[in-house]
Amino acid sequence: MDRDPYSEGVLPAKQLRSQRRRRAILDAANRLVEGLGYERMKMEDIAAEANSSVGTLYQRFRDKDGLLDALVGERLARMAERVDREITLEALGGGDRRHAIRCVTALIVEFFRDNPGFVRAVVARHLGEKEAFSPLRPLAQKTVSRAWEIYGRLWPEEANEAVRARFRFGFQIVLSTCSNAVLNRPGPILIDDPVMPDMLADTVLAVMNSGTLPIDRATIAPVPAGGGSGET
Amino acid sequence: MDRDPYSEGVLPAKQLRSQRRRRAILDAANRLVEGLGYERMKMEDIAAEANSSVGTLYQRFRDKDGLLDALVGERLARMAERVDREITLEALGGGDRRHAIRCVTALIVEFFRDNPGFVRAVVARHLGEKEAFSPLRPLAQKTVSRAWEIYGRLWPEEANEAVRARFRFGFQIVLSTCSNAVLNRPGPILIDDPVMPDMLADTVLAVMNSGTLPIDRATIAPVPAGGGSGET
Repeated sequence: MDRDPYSEGVLPAKQLRSQRRRRAILDAANRLVEGLGYERMKMEDIAAEANSSVGTLYQRFRDKDGLLDALVGERLARMAERVDREITLEALGGGDRRHAIRCVTALIVEFFRDNPGFVRAVVARHLGEKEAFSPLRPLAQKTVSRAWEIYGRLWPEEANEAVRARFRFGFQIVLSTCSNAVLNRPGPILIDDPVMPDMLADTVLAVMNSGTLPIDRATIAPVPAGGGSGET
Repeated sequence: MDRDPYSEGVLPAKQLRSQRRRRAILDAANRLVEGLGYERMKMEDIAAEANSSVGTLYQRFRDKDGLLDALVGERLARMAERVDREITLEALGGGDRRHAIRCVTALIVEFFRDNPGFVRAVVARHLGEKEAFSPLRPLAQKTVSRAWEIYGRLWPEEANEAVRARFRFGFQIVLSTCSNAVLNRPGPILIDDPVMPDMLADTVLAVMNSGTLPIDRATIAPVPAGGGSGET
C-alpha cells in the first residue's frame, strides 16, 4: 500500500519510523520471494535485504509464515483494487466480445507472470493444509464474477445461465493454465509469450462458441457460502 | 507392480519375504497418501498400516521422501504402461475425432481423479525445488505425444505443424485444468463429474477448430533435450 503523505505527516515520529521499517521489510521479502524463492529465503536474507536486523523482523512477524501471511494479504488486496480499476464497463466496452475477454485474460496472465514466486509460495503452503481453500481463490472468484457482470451488461442478449456457465468454465481453464504454467516454470506453456493473452482469449471464445459443450450440469461447483468475495 | 507368481516361486524364501514386505509398505503408503495426505502421514502411520515396524521401514527407505520417490517411480511406470495399452490405433480409431480425443481426456481425468493425494505430494515437493522439472512432466509428454502420433495416423490430412500446435495447446489446457482441480480440491472445477472427459474433449476440439488461435509461435516450449520420454 502506498502511504498517504498527509496521514503519514500526522503520525508521531516513532510510529512513522515503525511503519517505514515494516514497509522496507515487506518490500525486501517481496523481492526475495520472486528472486530467491520462498522456500530458500531465510529471515536472515530478508533482514540483510531490508538493511534491518533479524531481531527487528521477529518483533514484527511471528516467523517466515507470518511474513508470508502479510505479503499475501497485501498482494491480494492490491490485485483486487486493480480488478476494480481495470475490469470496467469503459475498458471492456471499447470493442467486440474478443476485446472484452482479452482485457480480462491479459490481467490474469499479467498477475501470474509477474508474481510466480508468490504464487508458488501460496500454493506450496496451501498443499500442506489438506482441503483448505487456496487464498488465491477469492481473488479468482472476484475477477471472473466482475468480468461476467460487465460482459452481461455489454451483451445483455447473452446474459443467461448457459452462457454464464461457459464463461465461468472458460475462465477456470485460463486460471488453471496460467497457474500451472507458473508452477511448472519452465514448462511447456510459455506464459511470457506476448501472444498468451490473445491465445487464452480465443480459447475462452472457442469454449463459449462451442455448441456441443454440455455445460448444463454441476461440473462447476456452486460458490461456497463465505468462500469468497462474490460469485464466479 | 503385480508379482509374477512364477518368478516369485524361484526366489529364495528370504528374498521373497523381503519383497512382500516392501510391497506391503508401498501399498500402505499409497493408501495413506490418498487418505491422510502426504504431509500429515508419518512413518509410524505407514508402519501401523503395513503391520510392520518403523525400524523395518527405515531399513528399506531412507526417510519419508525416499518412500515418496519409490511411490512416484512405481505409479508413473504403471501409468505409462496404461498409456501404451489404452492409447492405441484400435481404441482411438473406433469413431470420429471427438471419440479419439475423448479416449485421451478420459485417461487424463481418471489419473488425476484417482491420485489426488499423490499429485499434491509430487507438486508440493517439486515447488520446494525451484526450476526443477515436475516428475509428472515426462508422463504428460508421453501421453500427448503418443496421442498425437495416433491421431496423425487416423487423420493424415491433419498431420501438420499447425494442427499439432493446437493439439498440444489443447491438451496442455486439459492437463492444467485437471491438475488445478486436484490441487484446489474442493475447487470450482469438479473433476469427479462424469461429464468432465466430454467437456474437456469438446474444449480440445474447440481449440483445434478455432481458426483465429495464433498458434504459429513459440507459446509452447520446445521439448527440452532429455526432458522426457518423448515429444508432446
